Amino acid sequence: MLDCAIVGGGPAGLTAGLYATRGGLKNVTMFEMGMPGGQITQSSEIENYPGFFDHTKTGMDFMDTWQEQCFHFGLKHEMKKVERVAKTGEHFTITLEGGEQVEAKTAIVCTGSVPKRAGFKGEDEFFGKGVSTCATCDGFFYKDKPVTVVGGGDTALEEAFYLSNICSDVYVVHRRDEFRATPQTLDRVMRKENIHLITDSVIEEAFGDTMGLAGVKIRNVKTNEIIQMDNTGLFVFVGHDVNNSVLRDENDKFICEMNDWGQVIVDLSMKTSIPGLYTAGDMRIEAPKQVVSAAGDGSVAALQVISYIQEQQ
Amino acid sequence: MLDCAIVGGGPAGLTAGLYATRGGLKNVTMFEMGMPGGQITQSSEIENYPGFFDHTKTGMDFMDTWQEQCFHFGLKHEMKKVERVAKTGEHFTITLEGGEQVEAKTAIVCTGSVPKRAGFKGEDEFFGKGVSTCATCDGFFYKDKPVTVVGGGDTALEEAFYLSNICSDVYVVHRRDEFRATPQTLDRVMRKENIHLITDSVIEEAFGDTMGLAGVKIRNVKTNEIIQMDNTGLFVFVGHDVNNSVLRDENDKFICEMNDWGQVIVDLSMKTSIPGLYTAGDMRIEAPKQVVSAAGDGSVAALQVISYIQEQQ
Repeated sequence: MLDCAIVGGGPAGLTAGLYATRGGLKNVTMFEMGMPGGQITQSSEIENYPGFFDHTKTGMDFMDTWQEQCFHFGLKHEMKKVERVAKTGEHFTITLEGGEQVEAKTAIVCTGSVPKRAGFKGEDEFFGKGVSTCATCDGFFYKDKPVTVVGGGDTALEEAFYLSNICSDVYVVHRRDEFRATPQTLDRVMRKENIHLITDSVIEEAFGDTMGLAGVKIRNVKTNEIIQMDNTGLFVFVGHDVNNSVLRDENDKFICEMNDWGQVIVDLSMKTSIPGLYTAGDMRIEAPKQVVSAAGDGSVAALQVISYIQEQQ
Repeated sequence: MLDCAIVGGGPAGLTAGLYATRGGLKNVTMFEMGMPGGQITQSSEIENYPGFFDHTKTGMDFMDTWQEQCFHFGLKHEMKKVERVAKTGEHFTITLEGGEQVEAKTAIVCTGSVPKRAGFKGEDEFFGKGVSTCATCDGFFYKDKPVTVVGGGDTALEEAFYLSNICSDVYVVHRRDEFRATPQTLDRVMRKENIHLITDSVIEEAFGDTMGLAGVKIRNVKTNEIIQMDNTGLFVFVGHDVNNSVLRDENDKFICEMNDWGQVIVDLSMKTSIPGLYTAGDMRIEAPKQVVSAAGDGSVAALQVISYIQEQQ
């Protein structure tokens, strides 16, 4: 019987593991199929995690110290895919791929969310090297430079607005000529001088070399005319998939309360609606999707797990 | 007119400053009388901030990189004491010591809280060098070693329980022979074999040398008998003072909603009950009082400030 099963090995899961083991829990396992570290390992540079400020280091370097530290206090890592987390009586049953089951007193689920890809040529190749899905993370790298944004929803336009305070010009590429964003947001964007809406258009290609993205080709879907933009960052905001499948039961129903976007509803303590079940990081409601906030969530969830186990004694 | 006034320069305030300026706000000032960095600068060692894992470095070293990074994007620092934060119409007025007033569109108050001192000899001298007020932070440094705890309230006993999962023995020194803690908490503590209650007693002295705390002398207030404990960590849990005076108006009333302990009531977005006023870190409700969670709060508050200003445009 585990004291705590941590599902997911990004910044939230690693920090939860650090706090749970350093707080005296003996049997804590983090389930993560791949290398721990999460999405940040795909970044070529990080400058908004407080205390880490070295332009020569990548996201992979950044996560090296984390791993050493988080495993130092006894956290175990199982490189297995979790199929399902279920509460059975007082405890949790973690079902792994292949059917193996592990029992745990508590569970912290932090499987995050994945930004959707738009599907253009070069998107994967230059992801983290000029193609980004996070204005807060990467906008500043284009201070006083032009950037291109893909998307037409509220998030895309809000992020375009955020970028317009940093970058010289923001070109918003949207496939249709109408925007799904709320009228207020659209109105604000249209009044901002350095935001330019390029409608009826898609990214034909993101191009570059080993140094990263060099520019983008934008195609008008009605005329097939292609505009080439050089020296631009490219931000893709076409939605997120929340990795919440482990929280579905056999009838495909969520075991805890979720909002309409499939994010886990929590309070300031990272408690879900199920006693003993916590979440942390990008899969919760109102997640700012930053390493430092996910890590903060992880520490909170682990401290709550320790209290919860104490109260059961 | 400032875009944002940040009151307090600990991990929460610094991170808020980093995110606000890196997010494109031009006029952001952090008001902090002393050296930025907060309580953590008093620690001789930190091992639970993810990504910082160097046993040769102190809390002061730790905060060096933070400062460089957080000021890099244009955050200004005013070494002035803030007397009061008030909302006047759409904006905030920050009154400084001496009467000077600064206007700001938004305010993030993160003045933290201060653990109370018990008042024994050597307490200040060995603070951060064996005397601690944070079990989560420093308990692990006494893994499988005995520690002494001072206090008789719920927090003291809960922290004693937390320590009992890490340390060999926990000696709880309490001035009276009755505990203020709830019966359930007391019952759980009494059933834990390695927690020992030393009632009617106080810390007479914490002693040591330049290397730090070496031990404590405990005096029975009824018999004046003194027990000497060597090789022990000493944890003081006699309450916290929340630094909330800047949020009081001229009639001594709080300008935003607070709980009974004088902590600011916030939601997951660090919004207070006053539009445009945010808080972060140890002064909010349910704060876990960790560097990483305070920093997470700071990032959230700053991103909310940016959205708030956008929405006003």
